[in-house]
Amino acid sequence: MVALSSFLPIPSNSPFSINNIPFGVFSTKSDPIPRIGVAIGASILDLKALTTLNEFAALGRPVTAATRLFIQHLLLDSTDILRDDLELRRLSVIEQVNATMHLPFGIGDFTDFLNSRTHARNTHSSHATPVNMFNPPRAFPGRASSILPSGSPIVRPIGHLFDEYGKPFSGPSRELDVEVELAFFVGVPNFMFKRIPITEAEDHIFGVVMLNDWSTRDIQRGEDFPFAAFNAKNFASTISPWVVTLDALEPFRIKPQARDEGDMLLYLTDPKDSTYDIHIRMDWKIAETGEIFQASRSHLQNAYWTFKQMLTFHTLSGCPMRTGDLVGTGTITGEDSSSYCSLVEMTRNNTQKITTPGGAIRSFVEDGDEIIFTAWGGHTVDAGCVGFGECRGIILPAEL
Amino acid sequence: MVALSSFLPIPSNSPFSINNIPFGVFSTKSDPIPRIGVAIGASILDLKALTTLNEFAALGRPVTAATRLFIQHLLLDSTDILRDDLELRRLSVIEQVNATMHLPFGIGDFTDFLNSRTHARNTHSSHATPVNMFNPPRAFPGRASSILPSGSPIVRPIGHLFDEYGKPFSGPSRELDVEVELAFFVGVPNFMFKRIPITEAEDHIFGVVMLNDWSTRDIQRGEDFPFAAFNAKNFASTISPWVVTLDALEPFRIKPQARDEGDMLLYLTDPKDSTYDIHIRMDWKIAETGEIFQASRSHLQNAYWTFKQMLTFHTLSGCPMRTGDLVGTGTITGEDSSSYCSLVEMTRNNTQKITTPGGAIRSFVEDGDEIIFTAWGGHTVDAGCVGFGECRGIILPAEL
Repeated sequence: MVALSSFLPIPSNSPFSINNIPFGVFSTKSDPIPRIGVAIGASILDLKALTTLNEFAALGRPVTAATRLFIQHLLLDSTDILRDDLELRRLSVIEQVNATMHLPFGIGDFTDFLNSRTHARNTHSSHATPVNMFNPPRAFPGRASSILPSGSPIVRPIGHLFDEYGKPFSGPSRELDVEVELAFFVGVPNFMFKRIPITEAEDHIFGVVMLNDWSTRDIQRGEDFPFAAFNAKNFASTISPWVVTLDALEPFRIKPQARDEGDMLLYLTDPKDSTYDIHIRMDWKIAETGEIFQASRSHLQNAYWTFKQMLTFHTLSGCPMRTGDLVGTGTITGEDSSSYCSLVEMTRNNTQKITTPGGAIRSFVEDGDEIIFTAWGGHTVDAGCVGFGECRGIILPAEL
Repeated sequence: MVALSSFLPIPSNSPFSINNIPFGVFSTKSDPIPRIGVAIGASILDLKALTTLNEFAALGRPVTAATRLFIQHLLLDSTDILRDDLELRRLSVIEQVNATMHLPFGIGDFTDFLNSRTHARNTHSSHATPVNMFNPPRAFPGRASSILPSGSPIVRPIGHLFDEYGKPFSGPSRELDVEVELAFFVGVPNFMFKRIPITEAEDHIFGVVMLNDWSTRDIQRGEDFPFAAFNAKNFASTISPWVVTLDALEPFRIKPQARDEGDMLLYLTDPKDSTYDIHIRMDWKIAETGEIFQASRSHLQNAYWTFKQMLTFHTLSGCPMRTGDLVGTGTITGEDSSSYCSLVEMTRNNTQKITTPGGAIRSFVEDGDEIIFTAWGGHTVDAGCVGFGECRGIILPAEL
């Protein structure tokens, strides 16, 4: 990576180095109107002139890439515009600690994919007939209205449940789970009934965030047939608020995992087949002790399909994708159990307890627990890192 | 019903009598900016002062009901304001034939329910274990971006299909189906994590439209497990453009069908349990002959759950409903085969052909065919009728 350096101080382990320039929407106490900013170290460069990311992202990769490069240039040691104008800096550089982050996009539709071989095996093995979960690709419409930015508390949902004798009742979920995912935002929309070919898919993707697709396994058990999770998932999903652009991820382009040849139909066959070297970890803060431990560590390469393939499949039917539509990878569980990306997997379908290094015992997420995802491009978090910040949520007790 | 009469001419079989006053969004050639109107006979009363139905409906039933009554009053024989001011009439009354109808709401999220005992039996019988499809209620998130107003053509979708030897390929769907449904628009939103009790559900519903949830059964076959239809349904859904308010439907309040006691958990138990006497029919226009025949006739009473129960269940988890969210009944197939509301049912899972009165033979919808739904409150369409107009879509060939 080219060694760029900014005149603004950037902590060496910051996800938001000069190589990143992620976009987000924020407000401050003194100026409560949400506006676009760029994260740089522990600061935010205020881009008040832009209004919402929807309008900006719809301009397309050539424009957004050039804008990112211009902003990066503005922040370099060697550029004096902002460096030497202290009044301009006072007006345009805000400390992240003083900002409230909002949803980066108005989200029209939210889709989640099934993308992990192991997750599919771990969670859908009960079906009688062996089924190829990747032919066709599997995806599921999600709920857009309940997507929250990192830091928003999650109220434990009430559900339509069944007791041990099969008698139905309504009450708080006892099996509140997480799903560790990445997700991309659509930039340039397609016209209705016009497919996006795999060779053009990247031009329609603005950038990437982390996604925690909170799920309640006890509510889900009643809903899985003949459809799938409904109230079990529609109460909340949390995303990280800084959108890391595909341009910032370009240095981390790698080969995807090997796919079965029979699954790679012509429309999914990508002459430039590639994914990104993105690592993601899940930390779990235990309510009663404050202990924080690493519960999982996974990788985008555990996703069977690339972002490009997900978008191309999604529009095969002619489905219109709008700017700000969010598409999740689904749980990206890897083969090794340290990379399991949901608690239902870590507990082997709730047959084993999780014991933390500090001695706490868990099956699912308890009230007061906090779940924190972090993600970054490349193998280490150090100076020059392109990271995603945090995707964080604390559980509040059910409202009866 | 009180015999109200308007000074504007209203054809005796018009769905839009003085008793209806449905709201929609329209534009004209001479004034192409979409705006709110009220349908009256074959005319539209222009309500240019209002902007979108979202803002209006969010004001709540007391305001929208009063507005409807005021507009009804404006149109009465006995009210001179508009009756005697020809210049005002010229400015505010437009012929429907000169208007283009748009989506009545900005639709945030779209949900579809499973609501017909017979449809559940007809289409999900293959599952090994007997399952109660109504405990819990079953619902499925749909695609909001591809909802179209009546009259928009539908391009036959391409899908990820399988040949007779199980070999996958991509090509145009050969099993393009319809689903006859009704749907309601949410008016007043709920706060995130705050449930809507059954006793307050009606206050959150603005009104009702017809919905054709186009589905491709061959694409769906590959997607049904472990989730459900995805590309099989996300290419298009058509709704009727005039939203008939619950206030206009008040005279048609009836008892819902009998439900199993065990399914009626406390949160679903409605002291004022009621649905509406809404009839719906499906006409099918055959491309090659122009023949139009009645293919199905059904009734909202075939829905297991009432609108109120659907909304209450939807928010049990705390899921936030926004103004303009659309919630469909799902296919409302009745017991008698004349009320089957999808072609996969009419053809007994594609084992029998449909022969039209004019001698045409069909299994599914062919290119150039047109599907037209009509619906109305009460048993007959006559003077004073509260009807829904049309929900119409013609099929165009796949774009290869």
